Amino acid sequence: MPKISKKGQQMPESPIRKLVPYSEIAKKRGTKVYHLNIGQPDIKTPEVAMNSIKNIDIKVLEYSHSAGFESYRRKLADYYQKHNLPVNIEDIIITTGGSEALLFAMGSTMDTDDEIIIPEPFYANYNGFSTASGVKVVPVISTIDEGFALPPIADFEKLITSKTKAILICNPGNPTGYLYSKEEIVQLAELVKKHDLFLIADEVYREFIYDGDEHFSVMNVPGIEQHAIMIDSVSKRYSMCGARIGCIVSKNKEVMGAAMKFAQARLSPPTFAQIASEAALDTPQSYFDEVITEYKDRRDTLIAELNQIEGVKVATPKGAFYCIAKLPVKNADNFAQWLLESFDFNGETVMVAPAAGFYSTPNVGLDEVRIAYVLKKEDLIKSVRILKEALKVYTE
Amino acid sequence: MPKISKKGQQMPESPIRKLVPYSEIAKKRGTKVYHLNIGQPDIKTPEVAMNSIKNIDIKVLEYSHSAGFESYRRKLADYYQKHNLPVNIEDIIITTGGSEALLFAMGSTMDTDDEIIIPEPFYANYNGFSTASGVKVVPVISTIDEGFALPPIADFEKLITSKTKAILICNPGNPTGYLYSKEEIVQLAELVKKHDLFLIADEVYREFIYDGDEHFSVMNVPGIEQHAIMIDSVSKRYSMCGARIGCIVSKNKEVMGAAMKFAQARLSPPTFAQIASEAALDTPQSYFDEVITEYKDRRDTLIAELNQIEGVKVATPKGAFYCIAKLPVKNADNFAQWLLESFDFNGETVMVAPAAGFYSTPNVGLDEVRIAYVLKKEDLIKSVRILKEALKVYTE
Repeated sequence: MPKISKKGQQMPESPIRKLVPYSEIAKKRGTKVYHLNIGQPDIKTPEVAMNSIKNIDIKVLEYSHSAGFESYRRKLADYYQKHNLPVNIEDIIITTGGSEALLFAMGSTMDTDDEIIIPEPFYANYNGFSTASGVKVVPVISTIDEGFALPPIADFEKLITSKTKAILICNPGNPTGYLYSKEEIVQLAELVKKHDLFLIADEVYREFIYDGDEHFSVMNVPGIEQHAIMIDSVSKRYSMCGARIGCIVSKNKEVMGAAMKFAQARLSPPTFAQIASEAALDTPQSYFDEVITEYKDRRDTLIAELNQIEGVKVATPKGAFYCIAKLPVKNADNFAQWLLESFDFNGETVMVAPAAGFYSTPNVGLDEVRIAYVLKKEDLIKSVRILKEALKVYTE
Repeated sequence: MPKISKKGQQMPESPIRKLVPYSEIAKKRGTKVYHLNIGQPDIKTPEVAMNSIKNIDIKVLEYSHSAGFESYRRKLADYYQKHNLPVNIEDIIITTGGSEALLFAMGSTMDTDDEIIIPEPFYANYNGFSTASGVKVVPVISTIDEGFALPPIADFEKLITSKTKAILICNPGNPTGYLYSKEEIVQLAELVKKHDLFLIADEVYREFIYDGDEHFSVMNVPGIEQHAIMIDSVSKRYSMCGARIGCIVSKNKEVMGAAMKFAQARLSPPTFAQIASEAALDTPQSYFDEVITEYKDRRDTLIAELNQIEGVKVATPKGAFYCIAKLPVKNADNFAQWLLESFDFNGETVMVAPAAGFYSTPNVGLDEVRIAYVLKKEDLIKSVRILKEALKVYTE
């Protein structure tokens, strides 16, 4: 029997998937599960996007341009310019989700055994894309005590070797909800200039910012035009996770030339979803105002409730829709499993994502969980109540 | 300025893309171009597929299961079983086009510097996927004189090293149109068993067979269940190239386990296109009968016309919708360029794909072109007439 690849063996499992069998157990024993573990928003997709698909008149569903429909790229450039990002049509390649944009970014900038430095905790699939690309993730720890702020630049510099090719950040962050300040982005800019590295910024949560703070994009830093690569997606912005449309954006012509060759090999991004994503750009501002108000309300509720549980520590997220909470348990993995397998409060329990899976360093974040506030307020209140009751009786 | 990766530099350009600027020149000088160079069919997408999208009632466009909708996988398994392929739901992962299925297959079976043997000429993007995966393509030449039949097994065996992990075939073949016989597939099966290799078969043109021959799938060979990986796609079958839906199929649980981790990292295949692809499975047989009749007619016309040109040699394709033609020119690349740049016959010219780009061995196939018969009969007749007139006056 032929053997699978080392890469195939090493591909990490999602930290959430491991719990799925236990959520099945919860269901089997008739316990309702509140899902605090997933990043799938319950927010309605804008009607303008869904309607665009219903009204199509296509006889032959052809390949689109490998970089995506020109009309879509043009409108997307307008969108960025309206948000004060200096992005032109030729700086954009439409991708199959932010996922593919990350794969293109890694493939275009890194070879086998090259290294990418990522502040942890980070979006767990960065591990998968790195393994798939043959690239080594070098984590730099950010801590809940510092609210997951950018680690000191000296910590990055200690990790830079001749193999280091890029720094990857998620801003605002999944799973931390941390929003990098202008000063932090400028520090990173100085660092990548000094060491001739790429700065890849996953900015898919750009719109989700709650305290009147301004989002500072890597595309906004003068002097790093040749270093900056922005990753974007419609998944969260328009609650269109199933569309699988994203993009890679850069002013660096060589990077875009390489990314274009990756794009040509896979022919084109999905046509239906491009049509819906182009239409989504006409979503009225009122939609976002409502969504942001809703998420801010959820965040405020979640954080206030969590802070009332003794022994729980939480870093207030400034953006995205996640937070990391430190729990008074030894091992959050076991706790999450126990919640599903053995616990209920009035016939209900919660599913949380153990945070260790978002760290690359072993044995870090063992007592932390990621909580996504993608449920409505009443359910969040109930969920935190369940967590509180569970922690009262949990004995490990 | 940071440097892009070697991989990014080495990613091949499509052999067709290089000619695009010249087709622009043709357009500028007012010459009509018949596109014999592309694999984009002009056949209508089944209405049942297009209508499914118009009737959706989705409030939140959510991620699907990473392996694709269960309902779709179930129906697809039924489809394969109806075609006598022993494929169950658990043997299928839905992918973003056959492209992604190939990337998953390579990633799951091969590591950096591993080798994959591919009979050439082959679908040019296999080079791109191999480069992206860090894998080395080892070509084994099939010739127009043998009608692009499977090269002798001894030729494969000469190339097998400790790095060889898989053999990849396209059946029926793009760009050759060759359909492997049962005997040939069985020979390959013996070979992969003997050397413990994977046998990856790109069978996306399975339905396009013209002389009553039977398609013999790698899934139909007893004894190589743990070796066989089938790549499939809706692109050609239902003229849905823009959907970007395909699948990877295997009985090998380890391969599917690894492929599933790649699938989970990118979250899910596109939702709209999955809905349309599931609906497409209800396409009536009459649709295929018409399409096959049309393509057979086109093929017969094209081959008959080509055979009338002195000095042209063509291997009659038994399947897919391409053929390789040997032309009485030294360099088909220059000829294709000249057709677009400088030639016209009554204000019209043709664009063909130089076949050298479908060979991995340098300086092979220099006098060959790939012709796609995706145009209607009258246009094919006109196109070959143009080619004939061009060859009369071309002097290189």
